[in-house]
Amino acid sequence: MPDKKLIIPKEIVCSDSKRQILKNHFIEIAGDKIVNIGIIEDSIIKNFSGQVVHANNLTVVPGFIQTHIHLCQTLFRGLADDLELLDWLQLKIFPFENAHSKSSLKASVRLGLNELICGGTTTILDMGTLRHQEVIFEELINSKIRAFAGKCMMDINDLFPNFKSSTKEEINSTYQLAKFFHKKTDKIKYGFAPRFVLSCSEDLLKETTEMMMDFDGSLIHTHASENKKEIQEVRKMHGVENIEYFNSINMLGPKTVLAHGIHLNDNEINIIKNKNVKISHCPSSNLKLASGIANIPRYLKEGINVSLGADGAPCNNELNIFTEMKLAALIQKPFHGSTSMNAETIFRMATIDAAEALGLRDEIGSIEIGKKADLVFLNLNDSSLPLDVDERNIYSTIVYSASKNNVVNVMIGGEWIVKNNSSLIYDQAELISFGKEELIKLISRV
Amino acid sequence: MPDKKLIIPKEIVCSDSKRQILKNHFIEIAGDKIVNIGIIEDSIIKNFSGQVVHANNLTVVPGFIQTHIHLCQTLFRGLADDLELLDWLQLKIFPFENAHSKSSLKASVRLGLNELICGGTTTILDMGTLRHQEVIFEELINSKIRAFAGKCMMDINDLFPNFKSSTKEEINSTYQLAKFFHKKTDKIKYGFAPRFVLSCSEDLLKETTEMMMDFDGSLIHTHASENKKEIQEVRKMHGVENIEYFNSINMLGPKTVLAHGIHLNDNEINIIKNKNVKISHCPSSNLKLASGIANIPRYLKEGINVSLGADGAPCNNELNIFTEMKLAALIQKPFHGSTSMNAETIFRMATIDAAEALGLRDEIGSIEIGKKADLVFLNLNDSSLPLDVDERNIYSTIVYSASKNNVVNVMIGGEWIVKNNSSLIYDQAELISFGKEELIKLISRV
Repeated sequence: MPDKKLIIPKEIVCSDSKRQILKNHFIEIAGDKIVNIGIIEDSIIKNFSGQVVHANNLTVVPGFIQTHIHLCQTLFRGLADDLELLDWLQLKIFPFENAHSKSSLKASVRLGLNELICGGTTTILDMGTLRHQEVIFEELINSKIRAFAGKCMMDINDLFPNFKSSTKEEINSTYQLAKFFHKKTDKIKYGFAPRFVLSCSEDLLKETTEMMMDFDGSLIHTHASENKKEIQEVRKMHGVENIEYFNSINMLGPKTVLAHGIHLNDNEINIIKNKNVKISHCPSSNLKLASGIANIPRYLKEGINVSLGADGAPCNNELNIFTEMKLAALIQKPFHGSTSMNAETIFRMATIDAAEALGLRDEIGSIEIGKKADLVFLNLNDSSLPLDVDERNIYSTIVYSASKNNVVNVMIGGEWIVKNNSSLIYDQAELISFGKEELIKLISRV
Repeated sequence: MPDKKLIIPKEIVCSDSKRQILKNHFIEIAGDKIVNIGIIEDSIIKNFSGQVVHANNLTVVPGFIQTHIHLCQTLFRGLADDLELLDWLQLKIFPFENAHSKSSLKASVRLGLNELICGGTTTILDMGTLRHQEVIFEELINSKIRAFAGKCMMDINDLFPNFKSSTKEEINSTYQLAKFFHKKTDKIKYGFAPRFVLSCSEDLLKETTEMMMDFDGSLIHTHASENKKEIQEVRKMHGVENIEYFNSINMLGPKTVLAHGIHLNDNEINIIKNKNVKISHCPSSNLKLASGIANIPRYLKEGINVSLGADGAPCNNELNIFTEMKLAALIQKPFHGSTSMNAETIFRMATIDAAEALGLRDEIGSIEIGKKADLVFLNLNDSSLPLDVDERNIYSTIVYSASKNNVVNVMIGGEWIVKNNSSLIYDQAELISFGKEELIKLISRV
């Protein structure tokens, strides 16, 4: 018989299609799933045979989902500031990623996962790195997060030629990894990850797209149109715009997630819309790398699916969904008016819309019967937040005022991962000491 | 004999003119001042006659300074989202401020002060409200924060006519308040606060400027050129641009702090520069009210003093210097390049440059012998921050990655105000219950 839990929260922000905010309701969990949601009655609590979780002071929201993360870069946080994308890659990120050992990669991934999960993110789409991708998968499995991940594929690298491998090697090793790790656990899927046009031959992109078809439930995850120099280079290389190029080789579809998508022309926006391609918007990263401000209100108006990602620690320098949510709202207002991107729109981008982007709409992203019990428990009874009067807007509270220190408990697939602000997976002191040790060695290798 | 303390921190970020970051140094405090900074030696600790504070794991920085705050608005947090400035004032803020009782104002101010101080802000410049300004001063004194504050002066209000008073009444009551509260304690000074051009007659502005001369160490604090409709109205009213108008009535000088300053033409920038006027930059508020993005890199290049402010809770919706610092850096990069507004520049805007703006450069804003002991103790040994290797940049760590939950202790004028993440002034549950009670009554009055 599966483990049963009855959650008695203050309120539930469902993020479902009815946009329900439920008070006086319980959530019943069996195993990894939500099996019932109903009005609290004494008899239900008294007769419940499993664990009753009294969280009367806490607001339960769906686990947040981030659709563009680089776990391998967490160790480089603060060591690559104040550069634009191509310089940032050439001078810092490629040399650093190239210097990763299995052990430094492990340290980096753990630091990132700890920060993400403690901050309420329960599902990620991760862009891996060139080597030792198995380490990332192993750490994802150990962390108990829900994730898509994949080896970062590069068979061209004019910026840092040491950091690539052959087309054949990229395809072979990716295939082996996908075969081994796709659906290795219920939470892990493969996300094929050709880095970006400038690091991938046409053969590589085409073969990756085909390979993806062999793995049901997988997707393709790449960077696109993040930086003006990048799109100039793409134009030089292929004679067309970035998205037009992807389209010409049939790489675009509902299972393609494009990170950034800042510099797009009308035709490219149309292609994205018509092919139901997903955009992962990374507001902090887009500002910090001086990349630009994506016209998200327009994409939304066109019906394009947009979700959020903190990207990598060195271009942010946090992996914090609250920072991304607030910034995603604020950054658009001077350009598109104060009503553009209200708090509820943003909240849905970080939950149900992101689930849709990953093809997991039936499993996660909202609190509904039959979905996975990926739940975040927030203490919004905080003197720095809007006071809880009838007029309070819960979405505004979460998006504009709350922060990661309002996250008290995190449950993924019915299992507690964070309890009373403490990770049940990682020891914080150990994370820091192991990270430091590995970072010092990595810097000496660069 | 004054109270003596010897602080033994991990490191000290001085924010002084030499831009020192000291390791293995102590800070000696007598009464409210720093009396010595030197290399730690066992004999010094052994022979010290006062309290020795071992903070070996903590980084000490100067207390942060925010130069544009509306404490009276804290209670309205989350109740005025997604509006532009003039609508926001007319539909929400003026009716709310107008409905303030002494008691609701007290609740609002306490909530704001608690958030500010617990988040590491030790000095503020506050724009008060039309009525009951004495409540704000009393609460400032009780909180032990360092502050400039002043009654918000309004003798015109076309947006919400009930919320103003007569020119004579504004001048008289302001004079009485300044006489009573300016330098009432060592920490409190008067900041004359005509709200903005659209709410002030020329007589009021001129008399205020003259009145200010009677109060040594005071200043003038107003809003200017925040919103495009606002500057159009100013143009209609006076036939010149906002800053040109202020200049024509001799209101501008080194003791004038202008909040926002977003929409300025070349001549206005020149006036601000030549008159040594100070700009209080409010990045979150400027975005959330869809006001625009101030060209801060240009102002800095011109040599204009720029400091930071969270503005009011309903247009942010935090009062968090860490949010403002990060955003102030990030928001400029897409427009002025990735190297614009680096972390150290931002850190100085939030400390020593802000002290300069308030005429307190000799007293606060840096950790130096002879200055007030306004100190913030940060725990940067956090798995979500850059790891402490030799290559770590402390400014990047604080500006791009740290948050208010890294603030452990806060000292103002040698006195502990926050210890181990807990306010020694306010009870959090009491703040919330008093605030809620007052907010419910206030909403019923609106």
